[in-house]
Amino acid sequence: MKVHEYLRVFRERRKIMLRPAEFARIVERLDAEERVRVLRSIPLENLIEIIPELSDRTKHFFFLSISSKQSAKIISLLPPDERVDILQLLPSNTRLRIIDNLDEKIRKETLSLLKYEPFTAGGLMTTQFVAFHKSMKVKDAIKIIRKRKKKHYIYYIYVIDDEGKLIGIVSMRDLLLAKSNEKLESIMEKNVIKVLYSSPAREVVRIIKDNNLLALPVVDGDGRLLGIVTADDAMEAMESEAAREMDVMAGVSPLENVVGAKVISLAKARLPALLFGLMGTILMVYIVGSFETTLQKYLPLAFFMPLLVYLSDATGTQSESMTIRALALDPHLPLLKYILKQLKSGLMISSVVALFCFIFASVVWGIKFGMAIGLSLFLSMNFSNLIASLLPIVYKRLLKIDPAGISGPLDTILSDISTLVIYFLVASLLI
Amino acid sequence: MKVHEYLRVFRERRKIMLRPAEFARIVERLDAEERVRVLRSIPLENLIEIIPELSDRTKHFFFLSISSKQSAKIISLLPPDERVDILQLLPSNTRLRIIDNLDEKIRKETLSLLKYEPFTAGGLMTTQFVAFHKSMKVKDAIKIIRKRKKKHYIYYIYVIDDEGKLIGIVSMRDLLLAKSNEKLESIMEKNVIKVLYSSPAREVVRIIKDNNLLALPVVDGDGRLLGIVTADDAMEAMESEAAREMDVMAGVSPLENVVGAKVISLAKARLPALLFGLMGTILMVYIVGSFETTLQKYLPLAFFMPLLVYLSDATGTQSESMTIRALALDPHLPLLKYILKQLKSGLMISSVVALFCFIFASVVWGIKFGMAIGLSLFLSMNFSNLIASLLPIVYKRLLKIDPAGISGPLDTILSDISTLVIYFLVASLLI
Repeated sequence: MKVHEYLRVFRERRKIMLRPAEFARIVERLDAEERVRVLRSIPLENLIEIIPELSDRTKHFFFLSISSKQSAKIISLLPPDERVDILQLLPSNTRLRIIDNLDEKIRKETLSLLKYEPFTAGGLMTTQFVAFHKSMKVKDAIKIIRKRKKKHYIYYIYVIDDEGKLIGIVSMRDLLLAKSNEKLESIMEKNVIKVLYSSPAREVVRIIKDNNLLALPVVDGDGRLLGIVTADDAMEAMESEAAREMDVMAGVSPLENVVGAKVISLAKARLPALLFGLMGTILMVYIVGSFETTLQKYLPLAFFMPLLVYLSDATGTQSESMTIRALALDPHLPLLKYILKQLKSGLMISSVVALFCFIFASVVWGIKFGMAIGLSLFLSMNFSNLIASLLPIVYKRLLKIDPAGISGPLDTILSDISTLVIYFLVASLLI
Repeated sequence: MKVHEYLRVFRERRKIMLRPAEFARIVERLDAEERVRVLRSIPLENLIEIIPELSDRTKHFFFLSISSKQSAKIISLLPPDERVDILQLLPSNTRLRIIDNLDEKIRKETLSLLKYEPFTAGGLMTTQFVAFHKSMKVKDAIKIIRKRKKKHYIYYIYVIDDEGKLIGIVSMRDLLLAKSNEKLESIMEKNVIKVLYSSPAREVVRIIKDNNLLALPVVDGDGRLLGIVTADDAMEAMESEAAREMDVMAGVSPLENVVGAKVISLAKARLPALLFGLMGTILMVYIVGSFETTLQKYLPLAFFMPLLVYLSDATGTQSESMTIRALALDPHLPLLKYILKQLKSGLMISSVVALFCFIFASVVWGIKFGMAIGLSLFLSMNFSNLIASLLPIVYKRLLKIDPAGISGPLDTILSDISTLVIYFLVASLLI
């Protein structure tokens, strides 16, 4: 069945149960205009379930295609964190018009959430949580929860003091098992795991995973409860981070969906890194060209260029991937120890590979040439290993940047250029 | 503070609260022998909390370092899914000796879990769940839950019929809000999201995330409840999958921890792909060598070799990363449409890059040479784009293999060799 028929059947006969996420994935396969058309034809009650599952690009298209009033109506029905995510995707004038159209209470809540940086606990959190004063009795808490319409988001009950400070947590199970006249204060777990609103998303994910939490409370500098980050929102943040890291290594700018994207957008996501690489490789043309006389004297040097470039770059790519992962797994990675380990293992593998190439080249083209190949390979592999182990650390820790789509190609260019320079310098000296 | 002091302080003064996962991360930074020594000195009650947070390698070391009797004692105290994970890490004779030392009930449970493949719902699930018969009353269910010692794993109550088939689900909240004389049958949610024990881990992750579940029930072919996969176990499976994909692209064999690993193990994880690459590059030496006369006739051809190899490979790496992600995001990816999009965007970017290089080379070395560079670059970029878009699909869908640590380098070698062949063939014809 084609996508179109699928969607038609779904719209006509509500009985076909398609989960919102499945529906969203089908929508993403359509062209941009079609996506908007399909979304506009969906009843509001279904739409608000589907929107959170859509890609940022589709959300962006969709909300730009409808009026601010309509946007405000839809956005009001979405959970607060989703609301903020969408507003952050839109141009500032559209964003402000939509906010103006929101109801007083929702506008206030949304504005307070918009203050937080997107990749922090504050940016990930939702304000849909249940917090009661420490003096509340179990039976009253249960009574209030019973009255709430939307119950699915209640994972825990947070207990606060007079100043709104988070002082305890009560699970639904604890509530179920407690006597009805007890105060929350006396049944609450006092050792609450929480984060500051400014903590990075990665730290949030780590804490949730390490402690097997369903939701993590977010507090301000005074310990007042601001919101919660749910495990599934954290899971999504983690997934997009992993995808971003792969893209950075491959030199692709952030891109959500290939099948549904326009060809020109795909090209745009890939071109910057390639054009950047082009500049680097033109430099290589001149570097190799400057050793023209060496090459003329001994042409077999040209035969080995792809071998040296490949092996040094492959070593570097390995180190880069290992460093990115080590940084992700351990926020307190002991850098010196890590780099030393990487260098030692680099020395070991480069020795094996260089020895092999020395023997191969010596047998076919003589020992002097073999020595030039082996020595330059040994040097360039270790140099690539060093810079590729260091660069992700420099990006993350020192520069605090994530140069999307460029850092991978940049590292390769640095590795390739240094390889060629080392190769021809060693060869010029030895041959 | 050094790692050793940290650990000593932790052992001596229990009051310093270090979460099990934090402690585990510190342990992983020690050398293998030290890791075992530290773990053996930890009291059993702490140890069983720390073990699930350790890397597979450390678990493996540790359980081989103690007697089967001790192993059985520790393993009995761990959750069932963790128990099975550890047993699967050990050599079969050790495994069988430990199983023999388990108590009758735990032995039976463990043996039934060991039947499932590691990367399926069955392999990820735990048998620690609460299932009651449909006719049970709310008050009796609450009474039984009250009596359970370990309560942290109760997310939902599963409702089964006479034959053990899963027919409904009751959240703790539903239980809290229900009248005490109602039957579970009448308050349960009948539309239960569940998976077959043989479903792949990726599918399990997808379902949990799409439906914001805390735990997903696993059933057999007859719909009987076998176990549950919790959201945090699914999160871990996802994380290790993402790390594996990056490693595969970089040509690194599975490796858990760099700082704690021996240098020789690090070298072993990287060498296979590099030696494999060495074979490929030696082939390249002969390919370039076979065009010796062409090179002698026109030496600037050598200057452009790194440029062509780099740009074609970079295009391929981009496609590979995009394909891996597309396959991960959408289990029903429309292959033909996907490949066509990739090819079209490839044509676009290669045209831009090739045109640029044509102009550059024409200006410096003449139009004939420029045409050779531009045309061969255009052809080789598109060829690399095609094979790199296809290969991950061939690996996953057709071969159903995950050639850890080799597929990335294999793709690069294919790209590099085809680039060189195309380059020299085009150059021989045009110059």
